[in-house]
Amino acid sequence: MREVFQQSLDEVRERLVEISGLVGEAIEKATTAFGTSDVALAEEVIDNDTIIDEKAVALDELAIDILARQQPVATDLRMVVSALRISASLERMGDIAEHIAQLTRMRFPDRAIPKGLKSTFTKMGEIDVDLARKLTTLLETRDLALAEAIRNEDDKLDELHVSVFEKVLSDSWKGEASATIDATLASRYHERFGDHAVSIAKKMVYLATGDWTADSIED
Amino acid sequence: MREVFQQSLDEVRERLVEISGLVGEAIEKATTAFGTSDVALAEEVIDNDTIIDEKAVALDELAIDILARQQPVATDLRMVVSALRISASLERMGDIAEHIAQLTRMRFPDRAIPKGLKSTFTKMGEIDVDLARKLTTLLETRDLALAEAIRNEDDKLDELHVSVFEKVLSDSWKGEASATIDATLASRYHERFGDHAVSIAKKMVYLATGDWTADSIED
Repeated sequence: MREVFQQSLDEVRERLVEISGLVGEAIEKATTAFGTSDVALAEEVIDNDTIIDEKAVALDELAIDILARQQPVATDLRMVVSALRISASLERMGDIAEHIAQLTRMRFPDRAIPKGLKSTFTKMGEIDVDLARKLTTLLETRDLALAEAIRNEDDKLDELHVSVFEKVLSDSWKGEASATIDATLASRYHERFGDHAVSIAKKMVYLATGDWTADSIED
Repeated sequence: MREVFQQSLDEVRERLVEISGLVGEAIEKATTAFGTSDVALAEEVIDNDTIIDEKAVALDELAIDILARQQPVATDLRMVVSALRISASLERMGDIAEHIAQLTRMRFPDRAIPKGLKSTFTKMGEIDVDLARKLTTLLETRDLALAEAIRNEDDKLDELHVSVFEKVLSDSWKGEASATIDATLASRYHERFGDHAVSIAKKMVYLATGDWTADSIED
């Protein structure tokens, strides 16, 4: 029974790694499309989000099946419940990649990336991609040093998010209302993407350390 | 054992109803504070969000405890897993109320509610409050007619969300960048609040009908 459970957990972890990899591809394509007004690439992200959604649903079904058949308790139970939550966060990160792609498509043939904020959004996109990559490795290796690195990357994202508002509110901002809307929404999407990555990283830490109660309160 | 499980489920439901009630109070105060620039009321919402967070964590612990001790299967298991997800959505709805309160505090003593959009945001706030009230009753009574009503209210919210962007992008919009930012963020918060309400309503329908696979895909 123990061995069967271990195999099930391995299967869950492999699927989380797979979904996290797809999220990484989605955010890389979405931020590239956003930066270069590549509407075909944006469409690809939008179309492919259903794959992430379906894989998340399938993983949830597997997790529920494990709960029903193997009736885990204690840490084993926590692992399965955490997988359900991690899958929900990954699914949202996929949605956010889709939203960034939708902004790109909505403004095409104009650029969605607002003038004066190109380097900021390029940096945010790079951090997103790096976060997703670290997340996939964290899920795969359970190397908790990555959880710390993810928090640090997210801090940088939060600083950039604040700097977007400072820019838009400064006298040098000449953007029209549409550029202000795009900057506000895109920046918020990046910020939420980072929050979800941190939330998953925290769950991985809790799985290793056994402290379960702090997550929702801190977020 | 069956009776013990039923009592546990009743306890879970009561707590969901309680948290949903707190979310209803939070969004009512937050949208009132937003409309009237009442910074004291905004602070109250911000301070009280930790209560919602703590109650959501406690409910999650109870649900995990039920999974461990009573090892439910089939529909019983689905109910407990759904409670975990509903609690996560309610917690996010509380966060959104807090974000609306934070916008109010950030702009004080100026109004956060952008000129020309007062009636739109007043309506959005009223729909939020109504959604939260319907959600609480749905959780309490499992009257599925309310799930349908929640979807319809959310459609109205989505229409108002679109109308905010139309207004901001129209020639008549004289708002500065800060007003555009506030309108964009506040409108997005309302839209997400409605999405979470619909997501919970769907879960209640699935609990009654047994079709579990569509939720994430449709969202």
